[in-house]
Amino acid sequence: MGTGRIEAFTDGVIAIIITIMVLELKVPAGGDLGALGASVPILLAYVFSFVNVGLYWNNHHHLMLATDRIDGRLLWANLFLLFWLSLVPFVIRWHDESAFATGATAAYGIVLGMAAVGYKLTVHAIVACNGPDSPVARAVGRDWKGWGSIGVYLLAVPLAYVSRWAVVALYVGVIAMWLIPDRRIARILAERRP
Amino acid sequence: MGTGRIEAFTDGVIAIIITIMVLELKVPAGGDLGALGASVPILLAYVFSFVNVGLYWNNHHHLMLATDRIDGRLLWANLFLLFWLSLVPFVIRWHDESAFATGATAAYGIVLGMAAVGYKLTVHAIVACNGPDSPVARAVGRDWKGWGSIGVYLLAVPLAYVSRWAVVALYVGVIAMWLIPDRRIARILAERRP
Amino acid sequence: MGTGRIEAFTDGVIAIIITIMVLELKVPAGGDLGALGASVPILLAYVFSFVNVGLYWNNHHHLMLATDRIDGRLLWANLFLLFWLSLVPFVIRWHDESAFATGATAAYGIVLGMAAVGYKLTVHAIVACNGPDSPVARAVGRDWKGWGSIGVYLLAVPLAYVSRWAVVALYVGVIAMWLIPDRRIARILAERRP
Amino acid sequence: MGTGRIEAFTDGVIAIIITIMVLELKVPAGGDLGALGASVPILLAYVFSFVNVGLYWNNHHHLMLATDRIDGRLLWANLFLLFWLSLVPFVIRWHDESAFATGATAAYGIVLGMAAVGYKLTVHAIVACNGPDSPVARAVGRDWKGWGSIGVYLLAVPLAYVSRWAVVALYVGVIAMWLIPDRRIARILAERRP
Repeated sequence: MGTGRIEAFTDGVIAIIITIMVLELKVPAGGDLGALGASVPILLAYVFSFVNVGLYWNNHHHLMLATDRIDGRLLWANLFLLFWLSLVPFVIRWHDESAFATGATAAYGIVLGMAAVGYKLTVHAIVACNGPDSPVARAVGRDWKGWGSIGVYLLAVPLAYVSRWAVVALYVGVIAMWLIPDRRIARILAERRP
Repeated sequence: MGTGRIEAFTDGVIAIIITIMVLELKVPAGGDLGALGASVPILLAYVFSFVNVGLYWNNHHHLMLATDRIDGRLLWANLFLLFWLSLVPFVIRWHDESAFATGATAAYGIVLGMAAVGYKLTVHAIVACNGPDSPVARAVGRDWKGWGSIGVYLLAVPLAYVSRWAVVALYVGVIAMWLIPDRRIARILAERRP
Repeated sequence: MGTGRIEAFTDGVIAIIITIMVLELKVPAGGDLGALGASVPILLAYVFSFVNVGLYWNNHHHLMLATDRIDGRLLWANLFLLFWLSLVPFVIRWHDESAFATGATAAYGIVLGMAAVGYKLTVHAIVACNGPDSPVARAVGRDWKGWGSIGVYLLAVPLAYVSRWAVVALYVGVIAMWLIPDRRIARILAERRP
Repeated sequence: MGTGRIEAFTDGVIAIIITIMVLELKVPAGGDLGALGASVPILLAYVFSFVNVGLYWNNHHHLMLATDRIDGRLLWANLFLLFWLSLVPFVIRWHDESAFATGATAAYGIVLGMAAVGYKLTVHAIVACNGPDSPVARAVGRDWKGWGSIGVYLLAVPLAYVSRWAVVALYVGVIAMWLIPDRRIARILAERRP
């Protein structure tokens, strides 16, 4: 089994998640450009989620480029990841309708944390199926980024009740950490180029 | 005609079905994480439906890997299956808006039962088009899983009026039955590997 | 330019159209299975639209199998077809919210008629780009089906104000006409098989 | 890294954007065909947006046909473009709910202007990754179309407060400019044909 169809399905689900979030946003109540001001927080939450989901797509893309074989376990690990990503629009809508309630921000941490777990399970399933010397296994190594993300989101859930800005800083920090290109996977992909 | 485009279309429809269900869910009324409590039943129904639709995708994926030829009848059998799967978000929404009314649970049985009929018709169309010695024909055999699922859903519709928990147990039972990997199709796919 | 990406994009748009129609349907007001009774007309309209849009996908699939070259004109003819198909969920929703008003049924005729024009333009663009001896040109011939569909929908718009059932009969007639497999295109596709 | 998956993902997102706009439109309040009259402005706005997003898809298609290599920067430039395109349905909905308020028209200029910036960034990323002698670099040249579009949208934002019709004329002008096929890219694609 090649990776073609799992990539196509994942692309489809992520494309839908990233696009339907906008369906959830309330348009400004007024008719002037200034009325957009009240929409700024939810639009920023949308930007943040778009970048986050886009980051998962980007990483998934690289992961699959380095994967040769898939099996049933990988299909389910991938579905687990997609399930949690699909809850991102739900949490964004909760923010919008509750005027950024604390509970929504805490729930966002749970959703992103479980998505990080799903990504980890996907990586593990690839390694289990392609062997400990496979490109993904070598690229991921000890996977401090994966563990770090899960840890940060675990911390963010209770922290949402203390300081929203600290939580936002944590979330942005995780994004920054993943935006820095992963040299190992880039080097290993370069080696694989014919 | 190869299987490429039928796979792409099916992936697209299933990706949308699995993702828009979340658009249908009402967000918690309150702003605290505790307000999620009231959403737990509908979120569990979402998890259940996500796994169910994901299972169809997974099985469809395996089915198409073992299929060489398609024809018009197969296209329509596949559309019949997709039609019934597309009603899953409708039934989930009915559960949400009617606070888990009995009728919605019974309707869910009808929808899943007809989807199981659609899957059966798809398998039959593949066998009719690829011959009784084709990989799918050999893998499916007497298809007790397919007949069993239809039977269970037939039973679930009246049972919804007697005991919701019995129905949930039946639905979970069907999922468990399909989650167990099908050794025959795995063995036949292994034989086909170059 | 091959047909790959135009097929992928069309598959995506049609998959979304066919699936989001369900998002537009109001769930039953009551909680009993009997409450589904009031939803039967709109569910039948959904079935009808699902078959209609599925038919377009099916025909598009066959058309593209017989097409070797595409150009800018074909891309725009295809977008014109997709535009009108995208209004099908809008017209279905209008039926639902207006309790099947006459205007909505007439508008449905306009939308389906313009989609038929779009399909015709797509066929013309393929012939213009692939030559009068190309497979599609030979398969379509005088295209009485295409002209007939446009004529029927033209008739259906005013007829909606006289008799809804006559209009439904016309719409079902067009579907039946297209469901009969097109022998010419099947024969020509068979010739193309390696 | 080939362009396959970035094309598939972009196709998915654009297919969804172009289709969900229709979900945002309010159906006519009355039940007669005449009631569609009140929907004409928003339907025209939908046509306009459909053509605009379709144009981006068309251009993206040509751009990718002339691209051999992609990198991480290109993935993010492409996501930036898709982000702004994803706000088109949001702005359309604002028009619908505010009865075509001036602020919504101005916001449309911002969204289209930023999408034009995103397209420019995508072109730059392709040139950076494929070299100054690559087909895209030669086809784009000084890119007066790209700069012109950004300039026009910059002008349109304040102009929305002066005359809506002047803004509509500007928007239609940009579309016309892009509809004229780009001879350079067509010639360069023709050279690349095997």
